[in-house]
Amino acid sequence: MTKTNTGNFFEDFFLGQEIVHATPRTLTEGDVSLYTSLYGFRHMPQSSEPNAVELGFEAMPLDDMLAFHMVFGKTVPDVSLNAVANLGYAACQFGAPVYPGDTVRTTSTVIGLKQNSNGKTGVVYVNSVGMNQKNEVVLDYVRWVMVTKKDLDADAPETAIPNLPATLDVDELVIPEGLDFSNYDTDLSGSDFLWADYEIGEKIDHMDGMTIEEAEHQIATRLYQNTAKVHFDQFAAKDNRFGKRLIYGGHIISLARSLSFNGLGNAFKIAAINAGAHANPTFAGNTIFAWSEVLDKQEIKGRSDMGALRLRLVATKDHPASDFPYKGEDGKYHADVVLDLDYWVLMPR
Amino acid sequence: MTKTNTGNFFEDFFLGQEIVHATPRTLTEGDVSLYTSLYGFRHMPQSSEPNAVELGFEAMPLDDMLAFHMVFGKTVPDVSLNAVANLGYAACQFGAPVYPGDTVRTTSTVIGLKQNSNGKTGVVYVNSVGMNQKNEVVLDYVRWVMVTKKDLDADAPETAIPNLPATLDVDELVIPEGLDFSNYDTDLSGSDFLWADYEIGEKIDHMDGMTIEEAEHQIATRLYQNTAKVHFDQFAAKDNRFGKRLIYGGHIISLARSLSFNGLGNAFKIAAINAGAHANPTFAGNTIFAWSEVLDKQEIKGRSDMGALRLRLVATKDHPASDFPYKGEDGKYHADVVLDLDYWVLMPR
Amino acid sequence: MTKTNTGNFFEDFFLGQEIVHATPRTLTEGDVSLYTSLYGFRHMPQSSEPNAVELGFEAMPLDDMLAFHMVFGKTVPDVSLNAVANLGYAACQFGAPVYPGDTVRTTSTVIGLKQNSNGKTGVVYVNSVGMNQKNEVVLDYVRWVMVTKKDLDADAPETAIPNLPATLDVDELVIPEGLDFSNYDTDLSGSDFLWADYEIGEKIDHMDGMTIEEAEHQIATRLYQNTAKVHFDQFAAKDNRFGKRLIYGGHIISLARSLSFNGLGNAFKIAAINAGAHANPTFAGNTIFAWSEVLDKQEIKGRSDMGALRLRLVATKDHPASDFPYKGEDGKYHADVVLDLDYWVLMPR
Repeated sequence: MTKTNTGNFFEDFFLGQEIVHATPRTLTEGDVSLYTSLYGFRHMPQSSEPNAVELGFEAMPLDDMLAFHMVFGKTVPDVSLNAVANLGYAACQFGAPVYPGDTVRTTSTVIGLKQNSNGKTGVVYVNSVGMNQKNEVVLDYVRWVMVTKKDLDADAPETAIPNLPATLDVDELVIPEGLDFSNYDTDLSGSDFLWADYEIGEKIDHMDGMTIEEAEHQIATRLYQNTAKVHFDQFAAKDNRFGKRLIYGGHIISLARSLSFNGLGNAFKIAAINAGAHANPTFAGNTIFAWSEVLDKQEIKGRSDMGALRLRLVATKDHPASDFPYKGEDGKYHADVVLDLDYWVLMPR
Repeated sequence: MTKTNTGNFFEDFFLGQEIVHATPRTLTEGDVSLYTSLYGFRHMPQSSEPNAVELGFEAMPLDDMLAFHMVFGKTVPDVSLNAVANLGYAACQFGAPVYPGDTVRTTSTVIGLKQNSNGKTGVVYVNSVGMNQKNEVVLDYVRWVMVTKKDLDADAPETAIPNLPATLDVDELVIPEGLDFSNYDTDLSGSDFLWADYEIGEKIDHMDGMTIEEAEHQIATRLYQNTAKVHFDQFAAKDNRFGKRLIYGGHIISLARSLSFNGLGNAFKIAAINAGAHANPTFAGNTIFAWSEVLDKQEIKGRSDMGALRLRLVATKDHPASDFPYKGEDGKYHADVVLDLDYWVLMPR
Repeated sequence: MTKTNTGNFFEDFFLGQEIVHATPRTLTEGDVSLYTSLYGFRHMPQSSEPNAVELGFEAMPLDDMLAFHMVFGKTVPDVSLNAVANLGYAACQFGAPVYPGDTVRTTSTVIGLKQNSNGKTGVVYVNSVGMNQKNEVVLDYVRWVMVTKKDLDADAPETAIPNLPATLDVDELVIPEGLDFSNYDTDLSGSDFLWADYEIGEKIDHMDGMTIEEAEHQIATRLYQNTAKVHFDQFAAKDNRFGKRLIYGGHIISLARSLSFNGLGNAFKIAAINAGAHANPTFAGNTIFAWSEVLDKQEIKGRSDMGALRLRLVATKDHPASDFPYKGEDGKYHADVVLDLDYWVLMPR
């Protein structure tokens, strides 16, 4: 029996299967510094301990997307080592904030399976849950990936497609205990615009561009202990259809989120991701731009200190976002669009 | 009203204007590790906690230039987003040492204004002050930048040029409380040469060269949350007069300072920067060399454990420093000179 | 007298010479994060604090190779600044685990000298010892390097070649106090294979490849405060026989060790390095692959929780390791082999 992990193939998954992922990961201030240095992240509560504590955080929290990458990275060796495509995310709820010193681990349950008609691949739906050392849920989400079959003669499983919400309702958002955004300082946060200032339908060009280097995305992706081969091996990549290493989609999410500071400087707390698509691949040398649209705006029951905004975050490559590139009349993404993320933030009022 | 920060233009500044900069920044051991990894910094008190404590530091201090970059970075979105040129620094005094766990924030006051005769740009003088969470000053300096006007019809402000010292006097240097360099270990510091061993006029070739990669200066500059667009966006840079991203001048200061360990291994504590010029731009691929000249040497009143050296630190690109390149007979910098920094250090005697 | 360190030349060394190396180095969580981000290191006890503590570690230990690089880096300015070649390692014993917060310093003793017949170079054998702030040995090893003479007329020293073991005996391995691998969780570690599952002679292809960027190896090597010029200065390197910067051999060891997780996921604790050769140089752009062979398998006296495996770790460049490239019939390394490391690990049973 081979001692190397060749990953699970489509026929290895079964409905209800529970997977305990290796390796738990203790997150530290070192991870935070690297995150800042890779994306220029600069939201106040994630940059300044005293300001974080003033808002009810126990300490300076990690950016929610850093927590996401750490939880996600664990699933790769078991779920997507033989993935052809990462098809989507849904119902992604952030729970307890993650602080330096916390240890995060991930388990997944297979909640859906569908073999493709070609008989060579199939779609696997997993519900992955990240927990901290106190057994609090920090992240709970569904993703589905297209995975190759190794044994083409293996029986197709019974098709089961989970019922996934297009978007989470504002009432389903988790408000971490103790948070109180009443005394929010907009001088120190770098943006004057609070929840009340945003209107549904409003679009914001985040203006700045950031060019990605090979060393940067590799450093990021290894930090997350994400082992997907396509990001690291140029010897193999020279023969793929692009001739290049592909950049981890999550790297683009964090870049676009950091760029969105310029226009959404107070949108520091992600509550949920409703949906996400990596519309086109990205490569070293691409310059990433971003724009946002306010999709929804909701009060939060019983809270006068914060409200919820549902945002679309779109990232582009080598295409400044002032013309808000998105989809064509055929419903297909513009070739320069690389990310379409639909998410909820909690924002000071 | 646009929600994105387009920065202040020359006509937006007024004399006496006070600016509270976002975002406060809690500095950590992670930042220190990145700094070491980007520059090879290896002065003893900044590398070894027990040795730092033995010299009277509360803990392992950050290199003063790392503190400088963090304080400086905050000012960019408000002061220099529309800068054409960073013209100079003066009267830069370092105060309380910065330790991991400290939170630094920056405020600036406009102390001078002068519209240029072309009517399109003007010079803004700001006095920026970085404070820690105990409201101790960690850095107090003046810089002046040339900023574009947006509205060319805006009235020119009354010209006011601050009176700036060419150099700080040794009596103006801040000696942080508690420091005592009496028991300094030159075996462990890596250099035998103390304050008494240096002579005014002495020049030192620091010998080593270091080549800069795009990923490195981007990682550094984002770590400092410096948002100047010219450092990150190759899509825009391809159309500038260089066709390339420019490297943050402070990156060169830290590189040259780290190279200067070889010859100035005990010059670990910067007390002041008298003046600084980024003589020529630098780009990825440049190899940086450095040399120093001892400009002055002063006893410090009442201290037998330390003395002050005033040093000129010159960095070059793609030009080993053994011939001490500096200025031509016309008083202009040699084309390979990229940094001219005049600063005071406190050094064990 | 020049104030810059030009390093020791062959004639500067003498038998019994003791060298105190600068600079002590306090290791932090920031160093660990960088190490993870540079190599994708993901062994459980080095990634997860609670799991490390469960195994008897005081905290989350650094990877032994990170400790090695830090101890080794200190010796470069004194031992190998004028080295022509790093010839070998022997008798490398790891002692007390290194934890974030520990301060490591290095001293060396010259234990062997032999001038080469050409009269221009000689071989220097040093025994280097890394100690922590509690004066516990963390690493004790011998390396030998070929160093140039500066003064060709200097007398040759009496030849003295130390008696070095080809391999350490299992009884010589240091088992850090308090370790107990009884409750080892293979679900969370990411590999089902324990000590008993490996057979002498077994070969494992670690499958994954990782391409090295200039920024990555420079960041790593500076983190270790290793000042060898050949890794950083492209201006000088353009005229060497490769026209390129050489990558620090230790960078390849850590890369190969991280790749070896896939097949040796529970080989987290290095006890000793018996021998090591950097068979061929590596450069940015190379993709590194690795394979291992089990050379020996020994019980450890009085321990039922762990056993010792002696492993050969071979790294290659631009050559997937499925054909286990090693040496030709002439006994010379295959041109694509870049590392041959013979080491002992302690592994849960």
